[in-house]
Amino acid sequence: MKKYTVLGGGSWATAIVKILSENLPEITWYMRNDLAISHIKKYKHNPNYLSSVELHTNKIHLTSNINEAVVWADYVIFVIPSAFLVSELSKLTVSLKDKVIFSAIKGIVPESGLVVGEHLMEAYGINPMNIGVITGPCHAEEVALERLSYLTVACEDLLKAEEMAKALRGPFIRTKISEDIIGVEYGAMLKNIYAIAAGIAHGLGYGDNFQSVLMSNAIREMQRYVDAIHPIARDINQSAYLGDLLVTGYSAFSRNRLFGSMIGKGYSVRSAFMEMNMVAEGYYAVENAYKINQRQSPPAYTPILDAVYKVLYLHHPARETFQKLTEEMD
Amino acid sequence: MKKYTVLGGGSWATAIVKILSENLPEITWYMRNDLAISHIKKYKHNPNYLSSVELHTNKIHLTSNINEAVVWADYVIFVIPSAFLVSELSKLTVSLKDKVIFSAIKGIVPESGLVVGEHLMEAYGINPMNIGVITGPCHAEEVALERLSYLTVACEDLLKAEEMAKALRGPFIRTKISEDIIGVEYGAMLKNIYAIAAGIAHGLGYGDNFQSVLMSNAIREMQRYVDAIHPIARDINQSAYLGDLLVTGYSAFSRNRLFGSMIGKGYSVRSAFMEMNMVAEGYYAVENAYKINQRQSPPAYTPILDAVYKVLYLHHPARETFQKLTEEMD
Repeated sequence: MKKYTVLGGGSWATAIVKILSENLPEITWYMRNDLAISHIKKYKHNPNYLSSVELHTNKIHLTSNINEAVVWADYVIFVIPSAFLVSELSKLTVSLKDKVIFSAIKGIVPESGLVVGEHLMEAYGINPMNIGVITGPCHAEEVALERLSYLTVACEDLLKAEEMAKALRGPFIRTKISEDIIGVEYGAMLKNIYAIAAGIAHGLGYGDNFQSVLMSNAIREMQRYVDAIHPIARDINQSAYLGDLLVTGYSAFSRNRLFGSMIGKGYSVRSAFMEMNMVAEGYYAVENAYKINQRQSPPAYTPILDAVYKVLYLHHPARETFQKLTEEMD
Repeated sequence: MKKYTVLGGGSWATAIVKILSENLPEITWYMRNDLAISHIKKYKHNPNYLSSVELHTNKIHLTSNINEAVVWADYVIFVIPSAFLVSELSKLTVSLKDKVIFSAIKGIVPESGLVVGEHLMEAYGINPMNIGVITGPCHAEEVALERLSYLTVACEDLLKAEEMAKALRGPFIRTKISEDIIGVEYGAMLKNIYAIAAGIAHGLGYGDNFQSVLMSNAIREMQRYVDAIHPIARDINQSAYLGDLLVTGYSAFSRNRLFGSMIGKGYSVRSAFMEMNMVAEGYYAVENAYKINQRQSPPAYTPILDAVYKVLYLHHPARETFQKLTEEMD
């Protein structure tokens, strides 16, 4: 039986630990925060995220030493915000080369401008056949509530995808495997951008009719974008792409949507982040996704991404930019 | 310039009257309710639907005589609930043969089990080139609020579609034309069924993660269904199909979704309708859509439609039926 470790202490990491520890005899769990580790060991709850979930601490080896967690495991699951991935990886003294690495991280690694799977391949020379992605549509909060959720596990080596999927599958988790690691990673990144767009539209006063048109255009834009990056046969309406777009784009709790909504209401980027007391990860994705697309020849037609880029990075006024965008929607 | 008449007194009829009367020098508007007509003439508001909308009564000829409205017009727009269409048509003594007829009705004509366009062709021998459909995604309430909305106007004769689209287009209404009258009519019918399914799932306690998976499966099911009925090239992700599905499936105000939610919570069909004080039109669509599909050879694979049919018409328990359905979703 393969051994699994989860790296990260946030809500999605906590949800994955909950899922795995229900299925497996033991796992390791790395997080930086020693206080949180002590709390979890004593009270069986993560004090900071999904605090209602009772964790099976008898099966979970908690550690604040990333090397200890990694060296023990065959399958390493990264659930660290992409902005901290490089600094966490820099702590590693043990090799990742003989590990199977799954990323459950959404978004772009800022230092390289790459999605996580590509970053691991290019910056660490890891064999693509040993890299995979775990993606939703999945709010961690609903995993905590044991509401039925579907995960897609993508890896070019489908046997490894199935091994990972088997470890996740349970009464409340259905899994599906896919070879399209690049497509699901870019899709997961883009959906955060479309959630920002939905938020901007909402903040500007557009209603549900327009939201549905925006999502209908967004899924077609996502298809063009991922087809340009990685042209393989895929059904963009599968849950890893369309489902993931919808669960975020229609979420009242999405940080990206909230951020967009504040921009639509006239906040500056800086004041929105100050007000939210955090940065929405989709903000960085916008710039990277835009630049990656501009490097394609020809770039995909991406009016929604372009409009969000103009508003957030070129300081074009949101109202006029979205007014123009509505003319490109159909 | 073509002359337009709107037949029907409900919220969607009122919204279409508002749109047309802003663009055209005069229109006629037929409704059965003489009291409502008097009220509108006096107060410029429909007392029963979208009552906040101020109507341009100087440009609207109101009448409770359907023949007067029809004989005057070149373009006749039916916005009558499908359950009342046959009885309204039976009042006609003037011919429809030289008219262009557009349906803005969702659903199945109960007497024939056909969508409205097909019913008009088959029961009244109207030339298919003179029949069109106006479809959303569009909540009438948002038209009242002048929130930007997109309509698709479908007719095999694209010149007539464009003529109708031109009459609807305005600062708050974008229009798109299509030849796929059959596809958009069946799509509009199916989306009500998927809204019932979303409601049942919600009533049973499934959350947003599952809702997004359900919608992702629903659009693929809609594609299989309409491809089986009318196999032409179409992009199911356009707003007339996917947008229309989303605006209904995610609406907190959809009667179909509310009805489904009550079924999921354990109400019988009869008690749900008594509680709602009305019948959700999707209820009838379920039986007809199911039977139409069973007449195809082979029938399309429609696990969501089949599950809703079993719950509503064969009295299978909702919880077990949806538990099985979740195994067919991916």
